[in-house]
Amino acid sequence: MRAVDLIQKKRDGQTLSDDEIQFLIEGYTKGDIPDYQMSAFTMAVYFRKMNEAETLTLTKAMVQSGDTLDLSAIDGIKVDKHSTGGVGDKTSLSLLPLLASFGLKCAKMSGRGLGHTGGTIDKLESFTGFHTEISNEQFIRQVNNVGMAIVGQTKDLAPADKKLYALRDVTATVENISLIASSIMSKKLAAGADIIILDVKTGKGAFMKTLEDSTALAKEMVAIGNGAGKKTKAVITDMNEPLGNAVGNTLEVIEAIETLKGNGPKDFTELIYALTEQFLFSAGLCETHEEAFRMIDEKIANGEALNKLAQFVEAQGGAQEEVFHPELLPLAKHTTEIPAASDGFIREIECEEIGLCAMLLGGGRAKKEDSIDPGVGFVLHKKIGDPVKCGESLATMYYNSDSVPGNVIDKFTAAYTIGASAPPAKTLIYDVIR
Amino acid sequence: MRAVDLIQKKRDGQTLSDDEIQFLIEGYTKGDIPDYQMSAFTMAVYFRKMNEAETLTLTKAMVQSGDTLDLSAIDGIKVDKHSTGGVGDKTSLSLLPLLASFGLKCAKMSGRGLGHTGGTIDKLESFTGFHTEISNEQFIRQVNNVGMAIVGQTKDLAPADKKLYALRDVTATVENISLIASSIMSKKLAAGADIIILDVKTGKGAFMKTLEDSTALAKEMVAIGNGAGKKTKAVITDMNEPLGNAVGNTLEVIEAIETLKGNGPKDFTELIYALTEQFLFSAGLCETHEEAFRMIDEKIANGEALNKLAQFVEAQGGAQEEVFHPELLPLAKHTTEIPAASDGFIREIECEEIGLCAMLLGGGRAKKEDSIDPGVGFVLHKKIGDPVKCGESLATMYYNSDSVPGNVIDKFTAAYTIGASAPPAKTLIYDVIR
Repeated sequence: MRAVDLIQKKRDGQTLSDDEIQFLIEGYTKGDIPDYQMSAFTMAVYFRKMNEAETLTLTKAMVQSGDTLDLSAIDGIKVDKHSTGGVGDKTSLSLLPLLASFGLKCAKMSGRGLGHTGGTIDKLESFTGFHTEISNEQFIRQVNNVGMAIVGQTKDLAPADKKLYALRDVTATVENISLIASSIMSKKLAAGADIIILDVKTGKGAFMKTLEDSTALAKEMVAIGNGAGKKTKAVITDMNEPLGNAVGNTLEVIEAIETLKGNGPKDFTELIYALTEQFLFSAGLCETHEEAFRMIDEKIANGEALNKLAQFVEAQGGAQEEVFHPELLPLAKHTTEIPAASDGFIREIECEEIGLCAMLLGGGRAKKEDSIDPGVGFVLHKKIGDPVKCGESLATMYYNSDSVPGNVIDKFTAAYTIGASAPPAKTLIYDVIR
Repeated sequence: MRAVDLIQKKRDGQTLSDDEIQFLIEGYTKGDIPDYQMSAFTMAVYFRKMNEAETLTLTKAMVQSGDTLDLSAIDGIKVDKHSTGGVGDKTSLSLLPLLASFGLKCAKMSGRGLGHTGGTIDKLESFTGFHTEISNEQFIRQVNNVGMAIVGQTKDLAPADKKLYALRDVTATVENISLIASSIMSKKLAAGADIIILDVKTGKGAFMKTLEDSTALAKEMVAIGNGAGKKTKAVITDMNEPLGNAVGNTLEVIEAIETLKGNGPKDFTELIYALTEQFLFSAGLCETHEEAFRMIDEKIANGEALNKLAQFVEAQGGAQEEVFHPELLPLAKHTTEIPAASDGFIREIECEEIGLCAMLLGGGRAKKEDSIDPGVGFVLHKKIGDPVKCGESLATMYYNSDSVPGNVIDKFTAAYTIGASAPPAKTLIYDVIR
């Protein structure tokens, strides 16, 4: 078999066999197939696409290219979630403790933030003493005892994907549904859970801007997950404005805690309920929407969900009292209100700009090596559809610089579009793909 | 400017500016742009194509990537030809002396053969003592005095093309008209002639199999040549069977000499006349077909064309008497006739198979390092349309092995298709693209 013939086959619109796809991925992982052949191949895939069977084979080959997590020592149903990412997305912080309170097991690898979105580990490090450097044994033991653990990506999961993604990024071959879906799913499958629920964002602040594209990606990923023998579903959710009100590491932790106490923002609470419901269905813990919501209400009302977060934080070295008393979490030294420039209704909020504003305050990384300032960020008081008066506060800004960062205020204000009339009502949950 | 953005621009079907194409080629030549970006780019070009302006810019950028021949010290009109290649193609051997006899100046870089086709320099080395290791000064002086000189590719002409072609070859991105045309034309433009006539082969034995594809390639190359200020035309000629009767280095030299004496095979003679005619027109030496053919007849009848070949061979160290007495040229020790297996008419001859047969006899190279046996090959007695009787000789085979190479005979015979009825009449010259 020669790589050039397989490139040509795909270029000419033919379907590759399992053996052919495995040959490409194995050869590329080992370095036998050079980058320049793989980039020509991915460009051919961009134009000719891959069918469902090819995409599944590609994903499995990437899983086989490296380590896979062995979760067999964990009792019970292992669950995992993935979000395609967005601004204000602190979902794992509330969702995982809630799932753990139902006895589901969350053995999660997570990442740090880069660019305009934050990472779950960065957010968790807001808790004094919290760390992710735990041994494999502790990881398994903690999941068995507490129900959840979160570590950085220590194992070499799907190295073929890592190599391929870096190549696609510099060769304009990122935007292909099969390649995106297999990239995400190879890491999820290598992470070993039984049930995978995907939160596929859609809208201006999402990687996929249209509902059509988001649905196509969700379907592709669900097909891969189920094809690989994992119970997989996707929930398609809105990312036309930041999720919840808090943007910034510690501010988001506080919001996640409030949500577990039943005091969360409407949209973020709705998302947590919708995702949890799907986990409960997949795990066979309930059958109806009403039952699911009643069960979730109970776990929040009786404090079990919040307790799980506290146990988890403590197990990984963090200060448990900060979970029960989030006012102990240190925030930035200064705050200021950002006033609206006119009367009207909030019609649009550019998520990416809001994320970049938080980064400019020091809350995010422009480069991997950057350190971050957890206490800065924004709490939004106005979201899409809200009426606003000129001079009324759009958001409270938390900052540590000596002078007020006027450039950030300008950028933040510009991210808001205020119009004379109310925009059409927004949907948060568009669809569930099974 | 970033390469990834230009790849994306082409991927999305947009037109690249001159600056953008120059940035890519300059960067690639210097090594600033890696192979993996260039191969993604060429695959995007494969799908999205390049327009005429982009192709011209690409070609010029490749010319500028290396040396160009300075022919300013040569008096008169400098001419160059290029053939897209085929079996039995000894055109330069007859054409260049003929052009020189009209006072046109041929300062030619040529190559060696690889695979099933031979190279002009290999063929010329059939003359005892002939060599191409001449200094730049002698090259120019010889063209001024004799009217022609042929050297190997000593200068670093269009190195970007060399690098790009090698990359395209292993990434399934060869088959794009713009990339093929710019590859050929970059070397022609760097070689510095005023008039370029391209012999674009079409048919089963050609790189371009259909008249449509050959015409498209010819038009693209002619547009590039004229766009770069060179008088360029293309003649589209048949390659459904070997050109002329001789296949094999020394045998082809003998046929070229016979053609300059007026005793050449019909098809090869017709091609030489057709190409020469276009050079005469472009050089302004005559205006009508009748006049051109009369002038060519005269140069052959009065021996001036043959004399030019003799002067040229002598100037490069070869034995002049072998031009006037080609029977002096050493041929293989043994000959045998290859009999037809049935009665009928020759309907098809697989050129590539005939070329491979000559290679198997030792007349060609499988690898660059191989040495060749100049005296072996075939003289075809039957070509497409000829009637044949069972047992009658299809060709004389010249070989040096001790035993008759039966495998070659089998392969040669299998390359011929004999049918009950005569095939439709063949055309040699399909079109002239101006």
